[in-house]
Amino acid sequence: MTTQQLVQEIHKKKSFLCIGLDVDLTKVPKHILEFEDPIFEFNKSIIDATIDLCVAYKPNTAFYEAYGLKGWQSLQKTIQYLNEKHPEIFTIADAKRGDIGNTSTMYARAFFEDLNFDSVTVAPFMGKDSVEPFLEFENKHAIMLALTSNDGAFDFQTKNADGKELYKVVLETSKNWKNAQKLMYVVGATKAEYFTGIREIVPDSFLLVPGVGAQGGSLQEVCKYGMNDNIGLLINSSRGILYASAGNDFAEKARVEALKIQQEMEMILSK
Amino acid sequence: MTTQQLVQEIHKKKSFLCIGLDVDLTKVPKHILEFEDPIFEFNKSIIDATIDLCVAYKPNTAFYEAYGLKGWQSLQKTIQYLNEKHPEIFTIADAKRGDIGNTSTMYARAFFEDLNFDSVTVAPFMGKDSVEPFLEFENKHAIMLALTSNDGAFDFQTKNADGKELYKVVLETSKNWKNAQKLMYVVGATKAEYFTGIREIVPDSFLLVPGVGAQGGSLQEVCKYGMNDNIGLLINSSRGILYASAGNDFAEKARVEALKIQQEMEMILSK
Repeated sequence: MTTQQLVQEIHKKKSFLCIGLDVDLTKVPKHILEFEDPIFEFNKSIIDATIDLCVAYKPNTAFYEAYGLKGWQSLQKTIQYLNEKHPEIFTIADAKRGDIGNTSTMYARAFFEDLNFDSVTVAPFMGKDSVEPFLEFENKHAIMLALTSNDGAFDFQTKNADGKELYKVVLETSKNWKNAQKLMYVVGATKAEYFTGIREIVPDSFLLVPGVGAQGGSLQEVCKYGMNDNIGLLINSSRGILYASAGNDFAEKARVEALKIQQEMEMILSK
Repeated sequence: MTTQQLVQEIHKKKSFLCIGLDVDLTKVPKHILEFEDPIFEFNKSIIDATIDLCVAYKPNTAFYEAYGLKGWQSLQKTIQYLNEKHPEIFTIADAKRGDIGNTSTMYARAFFEDLNFDSVTVAPFMGKDSVEPFLEFENKHAIMLALTSNDGAFDFQTKNADGKELYKVVLETSKNWKNAQKLMYVVGATKAEYFTGIREIVPDSFLLVPGVGAQGGSLQEVCKYGMNDNIGLLINSSRGILYASAGNDFAEKARVEALKIQQEMEMILSK
């Protein structure tokens, strides 16, 4: 999918919500466990209940790999379901991959060719040749970690590197990489004021923003400092939507939570 | 496996060689492709031909994920084969994972419980809470990226962070994390003199060293600056061994290459 198509979808749906499909089988309603592929059944129910309220879905690969071969199969079925039924959805493999060049190419093939995701999250630590292979695929995107929403973000990402915070160095450096226009960035919502400085460096890029809701960030604040002319934001919510109810009404309750966020987004977009 | 057991194996086999099982089906002999699971068959042949010459095997997950579900199955069969036939071997899932805490726990379960690897490589960018979950498992290890062997290593890892190179900050900071004694580090062999400074920070830790051979590093130099009283080094070779021949004699030729390295190691150990 092109960035332009994503922007069109945002305007059409009046939403820039991304739903994280991080299925933990200890948290899903018991009757789901009776299905042959409970992870896929749970995802399918969530997708069917929220499809008109969001523009992106983001399975985190850890939650699938933890269930081994069966988990990888659930991931495959989930992305196939999205590709076939909802090709207008922007799909994100939240995998945080990154390795030396020829190895990153293998990861890119895994997520862009074998699974046909629109994008994959990548880690910057190994530098240019670990990320550029992800940018060689037409209409595919790499979403690189810049400033994350966890406590550990302050261990290295905010370290002063030659006069500025490391995450700013990461953003600036990556702008010079080949096909950098296909890069998006992960920026946690825990400190909305960081977005001002980030927008000075990457005014046009899309930012994937975790940490709104469950992790404490405010949607209004993030939009105030982070939104650009093309919206430029994908706000992720996972647990707050997926586990809104542990009962048989989990999908309805997930819709209620997603709707709340979508309505707040619609209000922001109308301004 | 405990570090002590690994050291014992090194002395027993007179080798600290790790063989990277990075199977690229475009590079294996044609007859291998006729098997139902060519990746596993290739690995099995390599393992059978080199098992007495090395102490560790390291499949890089990218090369399995690229083949989708079948690839994940090949990875599973490979680790099962090693666990059943060669429990004395130290196994490394070269996955370079790392995410927020609850997600890293899922990755740790995937590699330590579902697949039963002894260790997994992790990326430091997201800090303490992204790595500590990997250190909570008994007799399991996280091998964290410090200074890698690719060109991109010089984009961020060697940046001056508050007065010293970022990779040194990573090493120092991680020493204070919970269960830090289970940490090992990835240190590329491209500049052997870096090992002196690294050993000042982590004198006792095991270092996993890629980049000897194909990527240009010298074994003698690495050992001169990087070896400690417990040896403390695992030297990885992948392509130089796996693809020593593209013919039917690939396993024999792989053994010849592994033997060369093992003999050089035996000489170094005897000093």
